[in-house]
Amino acid sequence: MGIVLGANQYGKAENRLVRIYRETSRHEIRDVTITTALRGDFADAHLVGDQANVLPTDTQKNTCYAFAKERGLHEIEDFGLALARHFVEDVEPVRAATITIDELGWQRAQDHDHTWVRTGPEVRTTEVVVDAAGEVVTSGVKDLVILKSTGSEFAGFLKDRYTTLEETHDRIMATSLVARWRYTSTDVEWDKTRTDVRRILIDRFADVHSLALQQTLWEMGKAVLEAHTSIAEISLQAPNKHHFLVDLSPFGLENPGEVFYAADRPYGLIEATVTRD
Amino acid sequence: MGIVLGANQYGKAENRLVRIYRETSRHEIRDVTITTALRGDFADAHLVGDQANVLPTDTQKNTCYAFAKERGLHEIEDFGLALARHFVEDVEPVRAATITIDELGWQRAQDHDHTWVRTGPEVRTTEVVVDAAGEVVTSGVKDLVILKSTGSEFAGFLKDRYTTLEETHDRIMATSLVARWRYTSTDVEWDKTRTDVRRILIDRFADVHSLALQQTLWEMGKAVLEAHTSIAEISLQAPNKHHFLVDLSPFGLENPGEVFYAADRPYGLIEATVTRD
Amino acid sequence: MGIVLGANQYGKAENRLVRIYRETSRHEIRDVTITTALRGDFADAHLVGDQANVLPTDTQKNTCYAFAKERGLHEIEDFGLALARHFVEDVEPVRAATITIDELGWQRAQDHDHTWVRTGPEVRTTEVVVDAAGEVVTSGVKDLVILKSTGSEFAGFLKDRYTTLEETHDRIMATSLVARWRYTSTDVEWDKTRTDVRRILIDRFADVHSLALQQTLWEMGKAVLEAHTSIAEISLQAPNKHHFLVDLSPFGLENPGEVFYAADRPYGLIEATVTRD
Amino acid sequence: MGIVLGANQYGKAENRLVRIYRETSRHEIRDVTITTALRGDFADAHLVGDQANVLPTDTQKNTCYAFAKERGLHEIEDFGLALARHFVEDVEPVRAATITIDELGWQRAQDHDHTWVRTGPEVRTTEVVVDAAGEVVTSGVKDLVILKSTGSEFAGFLKDRYTTLEETHDRIMATSLVARWRYTSTDVEWDKTRTDVRRILIDRFADVHSLALQQTLWEMGKAVLEAHTSIAEISLQAPNKHHFLVDLSPFGLENPGEVFYAADRPYGLIEATVTRD
Repeated sequence: MGIVLGANQYGKAENRLVRIYRETSRHEIRDVTITTALRGDFADAHLVGDQANVLPTDTQKNTCYAFAKERGLHEIEDFGLALARHFVEDVEPVRAATITIDELGWQRAQDHDHTWVRTGPEVRTTEVVVDAAGEVVTSGVKDLVILKSTGSEFAGFLKDRYTTLEETHDRIMATSLVARWRYTSTDVEWDKTRTDVRRILIDRFADVHSLALQQTLWEMGKAVLEAHTSIAEISLQAPNKHHFLVDLSPFGLENPGEVFYAADRPYGLIEATVTRD
Repeated sequence: MGIVLGANQYGKAENRLVRIYRETSRHEIRDVTITTALRGDFADAHLVGDQANVLPTDTQKNTCYAFAKERGLHEIEDFGLALARHFVEDVEPVRAATITIDELGWQRAQDHDHTWVRTGPEVRTTEVVVDAAGEVVTSGVKDLVILKSTGSEFAGFLKDRYTTLEETHDRIMATSLVARWRYTSTDVEWDKTRTDVRRILIDRFADVHSLALQQTLWEMGKAVLEAHTSIAEISLQAPNKHHFLVDLSPFGLENPGEVFYAADRPYGLIEATVTRD
Repeated sequence: MGIVLGANQYGKAENRLVRIYRETSRHEIRDVTITTALRGDFADAHLVGDQANVLPTDTQKNTCYAFAKERGLHEIEDFGLALARHFVEDVEPVRAATITIDELGWQRAQDHDHTWVRTGPEVRTTEVVVDAAGEVVTSGVKDLVILKSTGSEFAGFLKDRYTTLEETHDRIMATSLVARWRYTSTDVEWDKTRTDVRRILIDRFADVHSLALQQTLWEMGKAVLEAHTSIAEISLQAPNKHHFLVDLSPFGLENPGEVFYAADRPYGLIEATVTRD
Repeated sequence: MGIVLGANQYGKAENRLVRIYRETSRHEIRDVTITTALRGDFADAHLVGDQANVLPTDTQKNTCYAFAKERGLHEIEDFGLALARHFVEDVEPVRAATITIDELGWQRAQDHDHTWVRTGPEVRTTEVVVDAAGEVVTSGVKDLVILKSTGSEFAGFLKDRYTTLEETHDRIMATSLVARWRYTSTDVEWDKTRTDVRRILIDRFADVHSLALQQTLWEMGKAVLEAHTSIAEISLQAPNKHHFLVDLSPFGLENPGEVFYAADRPYGLIEATVTRD
């Protein structure tokens, strides 16, 4: 039974790139972090250290910066596609490329022409994969922290000998959402779609009377797929950021859902994918 | 020459507290992290391990949560003052207390009654010190990330044999600002003042044509003191978050202030206090 | 085309657990962070919010702590197997469980009976999956930071129009290694094997004259598989932590591989799996 | 009442520098992070943006790297002194300099000549201040995580209406220690002294039967001052990293000091300085 090289890839991770548009006195800004990963015939680099097929990660970095000038960086999905296609089509030994881009938000400072204030913590994300099977774009948001102070229950759950949790019919529900949705094509209005998906996710989180975080995620995902035929599937990762009601009775005080301790760890972690048949 | 106990204090750090107001169906939220630190006659705890004078840090934590119910938590300065006064006035061995509060921001989700989206990265801060000398409130903001894509120069600086930096008359200037301003009294409209100080800081950052980050900080601080007689002094800590213009000439491309590499470390660190005579 | 629930799981993430053995005056310590994730028939929880099949994540947490007492926690692989088997065998709706455990290291303080100093940054890891297909244990290390100051080249690589990197025949090679190896069975001396795998990984990193980080990873993985028939496959993730030689020529100084700037971002990221035919 | 410039300083923060010694085939390594901060007559930079007195932070960075070659970097205190003296003596407008250095640890990989494994989390620190008043060196350690599983009590403390904590005569005591000691002169064997101070700190933490973390800190500091007349004062900052005994009684299990939940936040924070009369 021989020992062989299995799956492998390499690239340049976390290229921090800021693109300013200054054609007029009212500048525009794009602030992204790009990771490239290439797959192809790199066996010799592993087996004998031969680099003849290896485009250096430094070159991959340079390509990101050069493309930001040559092609412009507007919507991260388009930029990711341009980079991925370039590596697969123009660099001989490369068979597949994954480009991952996180975009940080900036808001004009009091509508100023060339000054901005960073928004967040929310980050926009995309992952573009180009290979022999085609092109797949999966966009998303992460670090979208949302909280509702009522309209959430947790009761009727399975109990065993290790169960001590009490049922509740009114609790805080909070999460730092990671959502990733896969598009059916590359012919999409990226920013417009993202904005609407984000709106739907928040709307459903707010409006669904929740019997379980699972149910809320399902309703969020379902509503996105119902509204956007360009989306094949959406995955949601939701840490249940626990807010524990503080017991104030030792001090002669009631606490009807008013004072909470926000815990760090552990946290529930609920993950669900909503897809089409 | 004997060995003696010097300065000492103790407390509970980073109490995570969320306060919901639910008197009507339109809830309100406050989300804070509180650190308490007490000073006084705690020599016996150190010298012989006698805890008779030591109010446990667990009790300090309980007090934060109980006060959030009993007194309410609205403006962090008032809450800090209530806690600090309590420890100094009601707990016999305590002579001085420092209460530090960071407040995270939340914005209503599409104007929903009980759902919010976390804003940031910016954090509101306050530090309240109560001791025999009186009460001092120092409020601020931190993680306020601001960037201007022009209107900033750096030239005419001192050169020695280790200087290689080229002068520039147009660069990106960006910082993650920490500002802390000390009030002259405790009779202040806290939130209203903070909002206006923040506005002034951003305005001056945007509008001053900057010959140096030092100059920008001075103008920011001066404008705050001019506008607010309730503020005695303001300290500004500004990392110079370097954005390096990428050299695209090897690829036959010009780069007139358009494509930048945003560096992590090292960073310039400029600190200045603006005060009254 | 209907909208349906896809893959889903839930659990309690990052349970921080310390287990002390104090049967004799010479105590022992184990310090772990455990994440549980369960899969099974949880459709109703998503579709209609019915929790009847849902064992709360709080119960999963309790189970970790109770098992640390009932069964003891010695080797993390055994503990992960005990937990995973329990959830799959004893909790009716659960069909599959993934238990992930990180173990922090402690070293006796000067051979003291009950005092330790934390070691690190290196962390021991394991992931145990139990489902209908059987039991799979994948152990590893992460945050294992290793550096060699010579014996590493990078030359003869592919060049395109975006390539500016110069070839080098002597550079620093450094990484923060993540290694994960999958066992062929659960009948393994876990700690003894891990210690030997770690030794082999470091030995090969040190002794292979490296023409590429890819080659080093291949040699590391191959040596592990050659030495341990109980291991089916090993995956290595190696950020290339760049150390750039500082140009000291403006100051009239040579720098023959002596003074380096250790960069944060971006970094090369090399990933390879070595497996059996 | 005029508005004036108060205290101000500027410098380059977190210069990451690795120094290799390769005079023989058995290399040596030093891995440090250096922050420089200069004070002096920089009023014009603030008031009118005149940089004539301002040595760029980029030059300060260059100086760190050049000095690592010219003077060598062996003990961080000597290196900090060399840098601080240079800025104050050789750069006309500079009146005072603070150099802060953190040193990461590396251990030879199986006694290899040019390969190391990172140790930690513990970091060695020094701060050197040179100004008109003279030269002050304050060295230390941080992130030194130590834990004892018995030999620690907490009882007999002050109780008020917010106190719910139960007394205990046997608990885990753990901290992530920050220790900083100020030397009386610069004529010190730095590394040798640091090694011995570290040994004493850990010894006293281990051996003192603790009635309070305050008492342990006092005994640690006192022992250091007793053993080292070259040290004028030592400050200790000790987060009380709480390990809460898990209540296993709902599951019919006893827990006599065996299974603990290691909490993140909040944590007690105990700070004390031990000094000479």
